[in-house]
Amino acid sequence: MSDTPIFKRLCLIGIGLIGSSIALRAKRDGLVETIVISTRRKETLKRAEALDLGDEYTDQISEAVKGADCVILCTPVGTCAMIAERMAPYLADGVIVSDVGSVKRSVVDQIKPHLPATAHLVPGHPIAGTEESGPDAGFATLFDNRWCLLTPEAKTSREAVLKIRKFWEAMGSMVDEMDPDHHDRVLAVTSHIPHLIAYNIVGTASDLEEVSQSEVIKFSASGFRDFTRIAASDPVMWRDVFLHNKEAVLEMLGRFSEDLSALQKAVRWGDGDMLFDHFTKTRDIRRGIIDAGQETDEPNFGRGKTDDT
Amino acid sequence: MSDTPIFKRLCLIGIGLIGSSIALRAKRDGLVETIVISTRRKETLKRAEALDLGDEYTDQISEAVKGADCVILCTPVGTCAMIAERMAPYLADGVIVSDVGSVKRSVVDQIKPHLPATAHLVPGHPIAGTEESGPDAGFATLFDNRWCLLTPEAKTSREAVLKIRKFWEAMGSMVDEMDPDHHDRVLAVTSHIPHLIAYNIVGTASDLEEVSQSEVIKFSASGFRDFTRIAASDPVMWRDVFLHNKEAVLEMLGRFSEDLSALQKAVRWGDGDMLFDHFTKTRDIRRGIIDAGQETDEPNFGRGKTDDT
Repeated sequence: MSDTPIFKRLCLIGIGLIGSSIALRAKRDGLVETIVISTRRKETLKRAEALDLGDEYTDQISEAVKGADCVILCTPVGTCAMIAERMAPYLADGVIVSDVGSVKRSVVDQIKPHLPATAHLVPGHPIAGTEESGPDAGFATLFDNRWCLLTPEAKTSREAVLKIRKFWEAMGSMVDEMDPDHHDRVLAVTSHIPHLIAYNIVGTASDLEEVSQSEVIKFSASGFRDFTRIAASDPVMWRDVFLHNKEAVLEMLGRFSEDLSALQKAVRWGDGDMLFDHFTKTRDIRRGIIDAGQETDEPNFGRGKTDDT
Repeated sequence: MSDTPIFKRLCLIGIGLIGSSIALRAKRDGLVETIVISTRRKETLKRAEALDLGDEYTDQISEAVKGADCVILCTPVGTCAMIAERMAPYLADGVIVSDVGSVKRSVVDQIKPHLPATAHLVPGHPIAGTEESGPDAGFATLFDNRWCLLTPEAKTSREAVLKIRKFWEAMGSMVDEMDPDHHDRVLAVTSHIPHLIAYNIVGTASDLEEVSQSEVIKFSASGFRDFTRIAASDPVMWRDVFLHNKEAVLEMLGRFSEDLSALQKAVRWGDGDMLFDHFTKTRDIRRGIIDAGQETDEPNFGRGKTDDT
């Protein structure tokens, strides 16, 4: 690449699945000169050091951000205001502040008021992840061929936006820009509602009296197990997503429930044509996702291929 | 194995994903002497023959069942009564009649009245499948390490039940016996409701005005794509499941909706503790499923491992 390193001093606040994956990729490809890792919990910081994820480690945000030309918050979205407030006095002139949160309007509202005028806020959201969490969960190719959405304000320095864009392209991502409110509505339907529904059905199944937990587990290969993957996602991260994208989540949930009532009615009245039409329509979307390179086309996600073929 | 072949003449009616997988495994391991394949659509029958799935092929049910010591219906559950009626006059004395349907009470009620007294009905349900369908979708190891549930009546010949049990064990399955009504309630929660919900969310997402279909597709890696897999399942099969397990589906759907309302209320009122507690509880179930050998423990189902690691 012509002008790497992209940043001289990259500060990652939070070192879970996303933070550690950024660190691993940045290191692998020499995208930054120095990686400073900061996290609140001492044992997580130690683990990050043991994994050799960065170059410097501190539990003090004030120390961490000093001299950094880019700071990326990789923490649950509920922590942004507190972190922004704490780091603000120590930020270098011209620093780019970004994040990786799954909600964008709230993140802007939480961070913006605290930043000095010399700082550039370029919020980001890499659409990638697994059900794992923590610094051990990261891997350098997590973002390959996945989208990263940036939601800067119109008046934000284009130079700053282009640098973050370049950084995410170097992470392997395709980058798009979007209004934060639109982002939150899109993600409500592609991510937040699916997670809420998955958490819900797994909860319902574990609370039944007449069907035992061991039956649910034994016979889960008939559909249920697919839902347990996203229902195993990080509880703090997801609590914060729902608390900070309330409006869009409630609106999309309303639509989901309306549609479910229509299907329920079709089941009750034995309306086979309605069910068939609905079940046929939904088949095409998966094909679109596979064609867009966002999903494997192997049956059963190609899971357990070694014992299945 | 000591006493293979288990059956002399196995008749498979219907040759989709399940029927073709049975045929491939039976052939691979010499579990039966002759496989007779019957299906209504001429092109499917031709395709089965081209794939060399059986030994004899006919679109006439009367021909197909003649002389068979085992007949397995591998068709959507809505077809059972019609098939039972048509085949009844041609069944051999002592024949075992079985099926692979995802609903069991309705299957018993549809088949039983038509069978001659000399036939043994041993309904079955292999808890295995993929989102693919048709005779090309089958593979010999589909049932390996998956459960197969049998729901015979108490008065059914034990010899017949044990033969079907042995057959499914030879398919690679673990076998359990269960009351058909209980089966239908267990599967409502582990399979039917998850499918209905997945079909529903995929439908909701494709009907929004403000979020485009291309956005749903592009950003699906954030959760949504997991749901599209089961929402790509065979529409006729699933229409019939819902029409024939109405009561249990409606009951479980009622519970699901109640629980979802509670989560919705927590989102609306910002009850982070309730969300956190719920999201924590659901994590354990996946661990149970992985430990039970019913799911891979690789992140993201191990999907696309070649490009993700």
